[in-house]
Amino acid sequence: MTHEHQTPSEGSVPLPRGFLAGAVRAGIRPDIDKLVVGILFSQMPCTAAAVYTSNRVKAAPLLVCQERLADGRAQAVIANSGCANAATGEQGLADARRMAELAAAKLGIRPSDVLVASTGVIGTLLPMERVRDGVSRLELSAAGGPDFARAIMTTDTRPKCAGGQCGRQGKEYSLWAVAKGAGMIHPNMATMLCFIATDAPLAHPYLAVSLREAVDASFNMIDVDSDTSTNDTVIVLANGSAGGDPIDSGHPASATFRSALTDCCIHLAKAIVADAEGATKVIECAVQGGASPADARKAAREVVRSLAVKTAVYGCDPNWGRILAAVGNSGAAMSEEKAVITISAPGNGGVCVYRGAPLPFDAAQARACLASREVNIRVELGLSDGSATAWGSDITEEYVRLNSAYTT
Amino acid sequence: MTHEHQTPSEGSVPLPRGFLAGAVRAGIRPDIDKLVVGILFSQMPCTAAAVYTSNRVKAAPLLVCQERLADGRAQAVIANSGCANAATGEQGLADARRMAELAAAKLGIRPSDVLVASTGVIGTLLPMERVRDGVSRLELSAAGGPDFARAIMTTDTRPKCAGGQCGRQGKEYSLWAVAKGAGMIHPNMATMLCFIATDAPLAHPYLAVSLREAVDASFNMIDVDSDTSTNDTVIVLANGSAGGDPIDSGHPASATFRSALTDCCIHLAKAIVADAEGATKVIECAVQGGASPADARKAAREVVRSLAVKTAVYGCDPNWGRILAAVGNSGAAMSEEKAVITISAPGNGGVCVYRGAPLPFDAAQARACLASREVNIRVELGLSDGSATAWGSDITEEYVRLNSAYTT
Repeated sequence: MTHEHQTPSEGSVPLPRGFLAGAVRAGIRPDIDKLVVGILFSQMPCTAAAVYTSNRVKAAPLLVCQERLADGRAQAVIANSGCANAATGEQGLADARRMAELAAAKLGIRPSDVLVASTGVIGTLLPMERVRDGVSRLELSAAGGPDFARAIMTTDTRPKCAGGQCGRQGKEYSLWAVAKGAGMIHPNMATMLCFIATDAPLAHPYLAVSLREAVDASFNMIDVDSDTSTNDTVIVLANGSAGGDPIDSGHPASATFRSALTDCCIHLAKAIVADAEGATKVIECAVQGGASPADARKAAREVVRSLAVKTAVYGCDPNWGRILAAVGNSGAAMSEEKAVITISAPGNGGVCVYRGAPLPFDAAQARACLASREVNIRVELGLSDGSATAWGSDITEEYVRLNSAYTT
Repeated sequence: MTHEHQTPSEGSVPLPRGFLAGAVRAGIRPDIDKLVVGILFSQMPCTAAAVYTSNRVKAAPLLVCQERLADGRAQAVIANSGCANAATGEQGLADARRMAELAAAKLGIRPSDVLVASTGVIGTLLPMERVRDGVSRLELSAAGGPDFARAIMTTDTRPKCAGGQCGRQGKEYSLWAVAKGAGMIHPNMATMLCFIATDAPLAHPYLAVSLREAVDASFNMIDVDSDTSTNDTVIVLANGSAGGDPIDSGHPASATFRSALTDCCIHLAKAIVADAEGATKVIECAVQGGASPADARKAAREVVRSLAVKTAVYGCDPNWGRILAAVGNSGAAMSEEKAVITISAPGNGGVCVYRGAPLPFDAAQARACLASREVNIRVELGLSDGSATAWGSDITEEYVRLNSAYTT
């Protein structure tokens, strides 16, 4: 049957054909620090692409991924939580390579086809004995996706999964994606990781461009605490097991696949924001009428970044002055005479709070919108047709408490 | 006597010769919202310069100042707290001009020589009857400086004043400066205002350049909550009553005056950070060895901006990973192998926590430094000789509480 892609589904999304996954707690004693190792494996080689943190301090596993993806191919990812292997110098790089070798030996593939990702404490070396032990005991299966999703969790309170089918003209492709959250609860924990697997056959330049577009519309549009970690990584593996011609920009399924990929990433990006430490709400800011798409992005991101906006939303204060000031502070072209600000929520049509000038509004209705778990702020700039949407968490006393409790 | 400039002094600094000031609570009833009006007046015309917010939403009084300072001359400032007169459209602009006219009529000078500044709630119109009443009752005197300093306070817990003498070869000049703090406690309150008066004779281009330099080294290097208000303004009035040749870049007192001006601004900038809402500490980050001064500025500012660093300092957690990640996130050129991070405090020599790689350090001593009211973080980048210093407040549960308590 021919259909467009489905909405990404919560819960357990099956791994696409030809993929196996698994995870194991590394280290026998339950009283030692958490270290969990997971592997995502394709039984056949994949076209692969990745997007990394913009932080100039890049963790060792990222450097290994950059090397390994020079040829646009990979077949497995080994990931661990509990240690970021960041700021660990030459030894850290050797350890990341060794992780790939351990996985390659277990899977019977070349180390150069194994990607590596780590998340956890910065500045400590990986306990390689425990990694080796974990890899040796790890069991892979087609049902191992949820275990892998849990393996990469650090301070997340729940696993984050998305996926579904997309297709066109009788050909269906599966997408599976998992992510872990951003935010720095424990002293050195941070990092957003996302791993995507698909059985669609994908041409390489097209896959890399599609991933960049999807990340720009999703993970690059969220804000928890404005800090960019040293380990952020999004990896996609496409093994082509669904068969058919390789998808590139001229393929009939091109737009459908790209849209499905972007939807998965947006779904996970919002899940990360919703699970941010101490957060009680997701703030969605949609900017329209920007002088350019880039300007709309700047404005939307600054609104969800602003501590003044985050705290006002937390306090259910319909404080449009803070929203207007954030837009003015974003670097985007804007005119306060042309700007229109509306606050709404799912199921609540909302209320216009500013239209080129202060205007009387129903404060009770605005507060009702702000009391929702998802708060929608729409900013119409009235300049041209640039539009963008960003998502941010609110900031609470609990955020401060979690991030300042000292543990060193 | 010939001497270099003095350190800016706390407490009551006298107004320079020829300056008068005063303030009055506008509105009779004690139960209505606070509105305080202050005037700073020079008995003779002044060379004047100003620096404004980078926010694209600029409050009406800023627009009036920009018009009035086109000729580089002014003779008075009228300022009010309680209403920012921002996002108030044409009526707001008319009100700001009317404020200047009221002051001009009282002082017997031209409205075009009166500057205007406002701070307080965004999006509400000035109660002009009360402003008129306030101006009519306001009394100016040479001893009115402290009243003026208190008049501009919003959520500040104390007035902020700096100044002193500077001079060279028998000629002494006086400097007086007051500021109010940044931060958004009440729903729409924000804004950093600073007013500087001097009896030094100053040539115009030199004064404007010196002010820009002083602001770049001080108010542009502080961070409370990364939000830039719509009303931020720094104004300097120089009436030349000390006599002598106009100071320009070739004058023998040029460097001394510029240094004194910068010291005043740094003193006030630090006072603003120390009085930031909910803050318990001032974090000073000095970056050295940057590839350029601009890079050092970026790195220093990002360290004091990072919520991860702010919360770690609040929690006395010697978490160098967050500092390193902030530097990496700043956009400054850096190499983690060359970076050195030291944490210290006044009277505590401190401890090196990172030197191109994690290193063992005395965590108890590091925590002792972090428990100080002023925490010093030094980052040596080891690339070239770019250096810069920035100051930020820590972030506490109290900050969140103050900023989310709703009042609309």
